[in-house]
Amino acid sequence: MINIPRGTQDILPEETKKWRYIEARLDQLMELYNYEEIRTPIFESTELFARGVGDSTDVVQKEMYTFKDKGDRSITLRPEGTAAVVRSYIENKMQGLPNQPVKLYYNGPMFRYERKQKGRYRQFTQFGVEAIGAEHPSIDAEILAMVMHIYQSFGLKHLKLVINSIGDIDSRKEYNNALVKHFEPVIEDFCKDCQARLHTNPMRILDCKVDKDKEAVKTAPRITEYLNEDSKAYFAEVKQHLDDLGIKYEEDPNLVRGLDYYTHTAFELMIDNPNYDGAITTLCGGGRYNGLLELLDGPSQTGIGFALSIERLLLALEEEGIDLDMEHEFDLFIVTMGEEADRYAVKILNDLRRDGVKADKDYMERKVKGQMKQADRLNAKYTVVIGDQELEDNKINVKDMQSGESDLIELSKLVNYFKN
Amino acid sequence: MINIPRGTQDILPEETKKWRYIEARLDQLMELYNYEEIRTPIFESTELFARGVGDSTDVVQKEMYTFKDKGDRSITLRPEGTAAVVRSYIENKMQGLPNQPVKLYYNGPMFRYERKQKGRYRQFTQFGVEAIGAEHPSIDAEILAMVMHIYQSFGLKHLKLVINSIGDIDSRKEYNNALVKHFEPVIEDFCKDCQARLHTNPMRILDCKVDKDKEAVKTAPRITEYLNEDSKAYFAEVKQHLDDLGIKYEEDPNLVRGLDYYTHTAFELMIDNPNYDGAITTLCGGGRYNGLLELLDGPSQTGIGFALSIERLLLALEEEGIDLDMEHEFDLFIVTMGEEADRYAVKILNDLRRDGVKADKDYMERKVKGQMKQADRLNAKYTVVIGDQELEDNKINVKDMQSGESDLIELSKLVNYFKN
Repeated sequence: MINIPRGTQDILPEETKKWRYIEARLDQLMELYNYEEIRTPIFESTELFARGVGDSTDVVQKEMYTFKDKGDRSITLRPEGTAAVVRSYIENKMQGLPNQPVKLYYNGPMFRYERKQKGRYRQFTQFGVEAIGAEHPSIDAEILAMVMHIYQSFGLKHLKLVINSIGDIDSRKEYNNALVKHFEPVIEDFCKDCQARLHTNPMRILDCKVDKDKEAVKTAPRITEYLNEDSKAYFAEVKQHLDDLGIKYEEDPNLVRGLDYYTHTAFELMIDNPNYDGAITTLCGGGRYNGLLELLDGPSQTGIGFALSIERLLLALEEEGIDLDMEHEFDLFIVTMGEEADRYAVKILNDLRRDGVKADKDYMERKVKGQMKQADRLNAKYTVVIGDQELEDNKINVKDMQSGESDLIELSKLVNYFKN
Repeated sequence: MINIPRGTQDILPEETKKWRYIEARLDQLMELYNYEEIRTPIFESTELFARGVGDSTDVVQKEMYTFKDKGDRSITLRPEGTAAVVRSYIENKMQGLPNQPVKLYYNGPMFRYERKQKGRYRQFTQFGVEAIGAEHPSIDAEILAMVMHIYQSFGLKHLKLVINSIGDIDSRKEYNNALVKHFEPVIEDFCKDCQARLHTNPMRILDCKVDKDKEAVKTAPRITEYLNEDSKAYFAEVKQHLDDLGIKYEEDPNLVRGLDYYTHTAFELMIDNPNYDGAITTLCGGGRYNGLLELLDGPSQTGIGFALSIERLLLALEEEGIDLDMEHEFDLFIVTMGEEADRYAVKILNDLRRDGVKADKDYMERKVKGQMKQADRLNAKYTVVIGDQELEDNKINVKDMQSGESDLIELSKLVNYFKN
């Protein structure tokens, strides 16, 4: 037997209903915030991620599904969404569109070759938002307010927003120099990844899971001490907006995010409930990226965005015992007795469905009892039984399955009966 | 600059609206027919397609995106949907579910490395349906009625349904023997692909684009002459249902479809309008596959299904000049003057959106005139202008952009005004 590839999952009918519900809700929310959907391809040139996500990241170094196509081009299944959205922004010259900033969202499968663990799949689904072309604290606030709104709209309550500022490119440079000075004397005690990062991206040493308990990490200089006046003012305004909106947050100076291109605001939304499994602590992360577009040979526009995992959202809903409020309605099951009745049912089903009635019949040559069971399983609101007698008399009983009551009507008026 | 991979496309905001509209419509139709969605991974074991689509097909031989993952497993970006749905059916033992037949649909990206041409992309999108577990002419009829319903529901009128029966496995065997006998003496005049197919899958010679005008193709025996009694009776019942439903069709004995596993009913839906570009003549194709599950080591269940390309559906709508009936509503644009007003707008926007109002403000420090233009571009139904005066007086004019009329209300009641 051929199995599903390791680390991937089939989403079966009971689950796809939840997925569609979540997607529709996200689409509605995006309309409220005036963001529009973009869909980029499942794979991109490998170079896009090497440059846009960063050569020194685990994602690029260890986790990408990279291969040659038949034209000998190196392509990679997208491991995240931002680089491709920015590629599309640049390629389609969106800086020239009249509506600015360009407010985009995406939702789709991403791929990382990771060790399998709860809530993590090699194919996973990210919903993400990017606002490109404005550097204004109020849009940082909009993004943060939207993140809260999204999770709260699904009924999640135990949420903790953690924010930080990495400052502008100058501040970041100063800070990086300070980190190199701080870590250089002790770097030999650190893991190989950190040793390699010291001169390419020293901030990521603060993020390292291997070295997180080392003394030098705890005593490392804080980005907050290296923010210049502009960066401080920008961060203060963002926080002022959050206070205005009544959005609670914590500041964490070690929150520098895994990717290379962040500047100014960085944030994560965490589950704030000690009962949760550690694997889903972080629901969503994002930040401002003022260097990314230029890094990809684009115009000097700035952006801010975030991404969240739908799989983790579902896990969080499950752990908090939240049922999504989905309708499951099925209108009519037609029980048939004999070939003539079955043939008549095919015809009437077609008419019913064309009038928007959710209806079905048996295809397994079940007996009447078996067909009634099938109607029950489908939770049909109504059933009818068609046999030779009904065809001859042109009469049929429409049974309301909830009340048990029946209406005797003309068989030829069945479609009309349900249409109204 | 890094470009999008060859043969793929970005779907930009104006287009994604259409896609979401089509997807929502398809989801609704599937509910009417009692089909449920399944989502399988973007890639599968290469072996699944080699066996399930067929080693001798162009798809498997020439068009797949196949590569090794980091665990040295050969995986392939799915070139079609049926094999994966059947893999999932087998793996999840769906033959044991109480609701039979199992009625599934899928919608997502597929990948084939093809020469680029109009309406064809290397990443394209297929919507497909599979009904597995019943062999009953009425379900074949349901599938055909559904195909017509789908296209008609989008307003397409020039449609031609072409059907054929390939018969059961016995009939198919007889027919294949007759074809081998017929083509063997002349096979040296045929293309290499056909020479290779002669003993693996001779029916596909009838499908060959290279050899389609050869005399031997025209004089080849017809499947209709080789259908046994059971196969003839099955086909007759399917056609009887179509007649009952008033669905017009043509029979084409050369319609054998490209894949190896079809039996009984095979069909294609074509655009029947001489003004159309040839590239989109076939909109949709499918058929019954009574051997596929066993071929994949599954139970001896039978299925029927079809797949359609969303890209071609969009092209057909465009060529027939059909506009999808989509709503584009935007409620309120808040014009701000000065920092205090902007700060107030951030707060009020958050409240408005949480009450379901589609609203936005400026993030570009535009002057009032520029902000009014932005409101126009968004087609906002209402605008307000907030400045220091409005904040001081707690009064604001809500302007109806269509009528030009204004309502003077209390600024602090703006959210309530729009809520109602």
